[in-house]
Amino acid sequence: MKQCEIKTFGILGGDKRQLFLADSLIKDGRSVILGGFDTLRSFGSIAIADIRTALEYSDALILPVPCVRTDGSLNAPFASGGIYFDSDELEIMKKKPVFTSMKERLVRAYPDLKGARLYDYAARDDFAILNAVPTAEGAAECAMSAFEGTLAGARCLVTGYGRIGKVLSRLLHSLGAKVTVSARSDTDRAYIQAFGYGFVNTTELREVRGFDVVFNTVPFLLFDETLLKNTDRDTLLIDLASLPGGVDFDAASALRIDAQRALSLPGKCAPKTAGEIIKTTVFRIIEEGNR
Amino acid sequence: MKQCEIKTFGILGGDKRQLFLADSLIKDGRSVILGGFDTLRSFGSIAIADIRTALEYSDALILPVPCVRTDGSLNAPFASGGIYFDSDELEIMKKKPVFTSMKERLVRAYPDLKGARLYDYAARDDFAILNAVPTAEGAAECAMSAFEGTLAGARCLVTGYGRIGKVLSRLLHSLGAKVTVSARSDTDRAYIQAFGYGFVNTTELREVRGFDVVFNTVPFLLFDETLLKNTDRDTLLIDLASLPGGVDFDAASALRIDAQRALSLPGKCAPKTAGEIIKTTVFRIIEEGNR
Amino acid sequence: MKQCEIKTFGILGGDKRQLFLADSLIKDGRSVILGGFDTLRSFGSIAIADIRTALEYSDALILPVPCVRTDGSLNAPFASGGIYFDSDELEIMKKKPVFTSMKERLVRAYPDLKGARLYDYAARDDFAILNAVPTAEGAAECAMSAFEGTLAGARCLVTGYGRIGKVLSRLLHSLGAKVTVSARSDTDRAYIQAFGYGFVNTTELREVRGFDVVFNTVPFLLFDETLLKNTDRDTLLIDLASLPGGVDFDAASALRIDAQRALSLPGKCAPKTAGEIIKTTVFRIIEEGNR
Amino acid sequence: MKQCEIKTFGILGGDKRQLFLADSLIKDGRSVILGGFDTLRSFGSIAIADIRTALEYSDALILPVPCVRTDGSLNAPFASGGIYFDSDELEIMKKKPVFTSMKERLVRAYPDLKGARLYDYAARDDFAILNAVPTAEGAAECAMSAFEGTLAGARCLVTGYGRIGKVLSRLLHSLGAKVTVSARSDTDRAYIQAFGYGFVNTTELREVRGFDVVFNTVPFLLFDETLLKNTDRDTLLIDLASLPGGVDFDAASALRIDAQRALSLPGKCAPKTAGEIIKTTVFRIIEEGNR
Repeated sequence: MKQCEIKTFGILGGDKRQLFLADSLIKDGRSVILGGFDTLRSFGSIAIADIRTALEYSDALILPVPCVRTDGSLNAPFASGGIYFDSDELEIMKKKPVFTSMKERLVRAYPDLKGARLYDYAARDDFAILNAVPTAEGAAECAMSAFEGTLAGARCLVTGYGRIGKVLSRLLHSLGAKVTVSARSDTDRAYIQAFGYGFVNTTELREVRGFDVVFNTVPFLLFDETLLKNTDRDTLLIDLASLPGGVDFDAASALRIDAQRALSLPGKCAPKTAGEIIKTTVFRIIEEGNR
Repeated sequence: MKQCEIKTFGILGGDKRQLFLADSLIKDGRSVILGGFDTLRSFGSIAIADIRTALEYSDALILPVPCVRTDGSLNAPFASGGIYFDSDELEIMKKKPVFTSMKERLVRAYPDLKGARLYDYAARDDFAILNAVPTAEGAAECAMSAFEGTLAGARCLVTGYGRIGKVLSRLLHSLGAKVTVSARSDTDRAYIQAFGYGFVNTTELREVRGFDVVFNTVPFLLFDETLLKNTDRDTLLIDLASLPGGVDFDAASALRIDAQRALSLPGKCAPKTAGEIIKTTVFRIIEEGNR
Repeated sequence: MKQCEIKTFGILGGDKRQLFLADSLIKDGRSVILGGFDTLRSFGSIAIADIRTALEYSDALILPVPCVRTDGSLNAPFASGGIYFDSDELEIMKKKPVFTSMKERLVRAYPDLKGARLYDYAARDDFAILNAVPTAEGAAECAMSAFEGTLAGARCLVTGYGRIGKVLSRLLHSLGAKVTVSARSDTDRAYIQAFGYGFVNTTELREVRGFDVVFNTVPFLLFDETLLKNTDRDTLLIDLASLPGGVDFDAASALRIDAQRALSLPGKCAPKTAGEIIKTTVFRIIEEGNR
Repeated sequence: MKQCEIKTFGILGGDKRQLFLADSLIKDGRSVILGGFDTLRSFGSIAIADIRTALEYSDALILPVPCVRTDGSLNAPFASGGIYFDSDELEIMKKKPVFTSMKERLVRAYPDLKGARLYDYAARDDFAILNAVPTAEGAAECAMSAFEGTLAGARCLVTGYGRIGKVLSRLLHSLGAKVTVSARSDTDRAYIQAFGYGFVNTTELREVRGFDVVFNTVPFLLFDETLLKNTDRDTLLIDLASLPGGVDFDAASALRIDAQRALSLPGKCAPKTAGEIIKTTVFRIIEEGNR
């Protein structure tokens, strides 16, 4: 697979992110055919085609995040009806590099694609790290919107110091918040202290007192009823952990703690940036293939 | 006027800011009587009284921002009906220090108050500077919400380098935006460059190209039709200048430029912080009187 | 005076700053003749001439900071002997724009220059503001060198919130120090708090406790014996105020407080940046003359 | 080993770091006996004892970084003569917890200590991370001192994105430098871009052009003659990599590139902070033992 060979990308389905991805590819001098956007007439100077055209006249295909719905139809919110690939279409797909998210789910829905050149851009670590920037900014936006004070001067707790925790704690610190981060390892603790944040050990978190806003990034039920009972009532709790999430929302509601779920922030809050990150990641895969 | 003498503040009218002001005074150990909030049953542990009670049983009065409406009624969105001060009430007010915004407008509506101890907290420079923090954060929130990329990496122009310009440019820089500031004086230009921002001279602003988001703080019609015609279509324009504002919104609309008016941000986006700023300023006035 | 007319700058005397100024002008496509540097053979590709040549073959002249010594000789540390302008030379100087520091001192030494086109670049506010950047960085370097801990986490007091105070407090904050600033006006106090620093009122400064490093920028004797007696012994005190300075060094020495005078930091710590600031300011003067 | 049992620490040998460590322990309410500092009369209120006293009357021992010299003598620059532990002393040491650096080297010099309770605080990841802060600040100080411009606005390259690279790139960014980081992994590249720095792939580094200052943290010969030949002459090169380092200094000298070795920065530039980091790490080891 050589980068120079791919002149035309077929973008099949997806939301605004894929439209900005298309736009960004065009600005880079590539051609783009959009398929699965038939409720739109056009997008800028890019023509909207049907799926078959997009498949046939492109050198490579890009599927969205997530790629297909549970019923196997293409995730295509801008399409007027459900889109399922037929065997002819799958044949075409097998001849081209296909950049997709959730490769396994795709193959489960379309076993014919086993053996196709499927590249899962969304499974990559660098994709997730780059998306931590729009996620963190989206989380800050949520907090600015729901918290009645400014983040400047606010006492914020970030639970977890993975990709999102690293980027979010830095962002909140930049905004003038007083940042405490919870983590478990000695290594994380040392970085947290080196960067000047307060530290608490996640495993010793028995109560959450004196914080205006808490951002949870820990992907298990950290804020269970017990911890929530020992959390200040006027604390705003924003759960960034992917489903099932890290907060018992029923318990929070019963305790009258304002807890909000904030998922898929890159696509919702910054689809332009999210689209550019897809492009960056796809190009890296291509580049690596060329080595 | 001695600080120690004021034990009980009567807070007359106002929005959430005054409620947070009340809360903050209570936390400081003062007593508070709320008047003009009769649509609320209570606020935390603070009883809601009528205007007369609040006037009589307090040592000092605090009026909101703005203080009265154009018809002379108290600005009291949480009150069930229009509130006008009668001559008895004005007599009581004349005996106590009254902290208010828009002193002149108040005296115009109630000439009896001429000669009263009216302290205009909202006219002070320090009040305006402290409010630049919630204003700037509110502006960033607006931009995060309306702009489809992240502010991190976005090319931002701030027109004007007054109180809001100073705080906002710094905030955007902290968020990772590429910041350019327009100003007119050599002094401002030097600070702008010393802080590492790009500079353009406001008086030489003939076109606005290559910016994702523009924040106007200049309080005259800078973005007239001519300048808007030379502004990129996909630029988001947020006008922070007080009315009549700095943007010809009709022209922007005709040119399909996304222009938004963002006014009274401290009260809307961060009433808690805004209430604390009122408290801080009132206390400074008291402190200065004690010297 | 038009910018385009000045092709060749004669740089007379000065230290490394003027050499970097010369270098920067060359990189901008100008010609430069250096006079008063005869202990150097050459500087990069720039020939070293004598004063007379530099005077005659240039379109404009640049004198250093300071311009002349108290005996009237040119401030030219790289010259082998004392340089005094004779009447022929002064005649030539009168025909050209002369960019200098300390215009008055120059005219006092050479009354013939009264009426010459003398432009005092060093007297300008923007020159001083731009120099606050190398001054602040030089001050941080001094503190890093003399203080036995890191500035990250150090408790720092900056007295005075003028040009240097503004830039230095921001720099120390960026470095992770805990910054307190002393100032006198309500306006300064408000900005200091808006930027998240601690505040103390300079006029109420009776003791200095709990600070690792103090940077004085106040240009009068703030740290007199009385205040020094109420300053922690292990505080490092760096005086940035121009002579006579703001610290009683004899008293500090008697009290065994480590107090250091840090003067002329741009020239000492960052002559390259300082030279570029001279260029920037000279060009602004030219540009303004062209309007 | 319980924390509460250790009342008196015997600090054997070392430089200023150990003195600040002693000071910090005293401030925490512990007792300290200093051994191996006989060229000092006293240190604050702490008595200077001989090695034997320090060994006998303490509950735990702390050895310095490095612990012993190549001849087996204690690393004790403040001692008047060479200090070697005899078998009686080693017997005492075996009865107490000994916190040391370079445990292996110690056991090689004193095989009797095999089986002693030796805790290598300097081998821990968190120790190294916390020391990245004084290392980075020391590197910035070196650069400020040697570079003739300000770091504000300077184009800086940091090679390597390990512990020091992470902290240093952030510090330089805070100082207003234009930061580029070189690394090898996709994960590092993504973080580098997420934080807004420029990126270059270390393995593709064929030339170093357009940088004012380069900080090397890569612990192998990255800047060999070939790369140095393709490095700008006026670039300042600071090598932070531990010996043998990452720069061919002979080649740099022949090419007239200003290359400087900067080693052991925490001890040299910020012994107070370095001493506190030793204390923090020792306490963590104790705490972990108590679990």
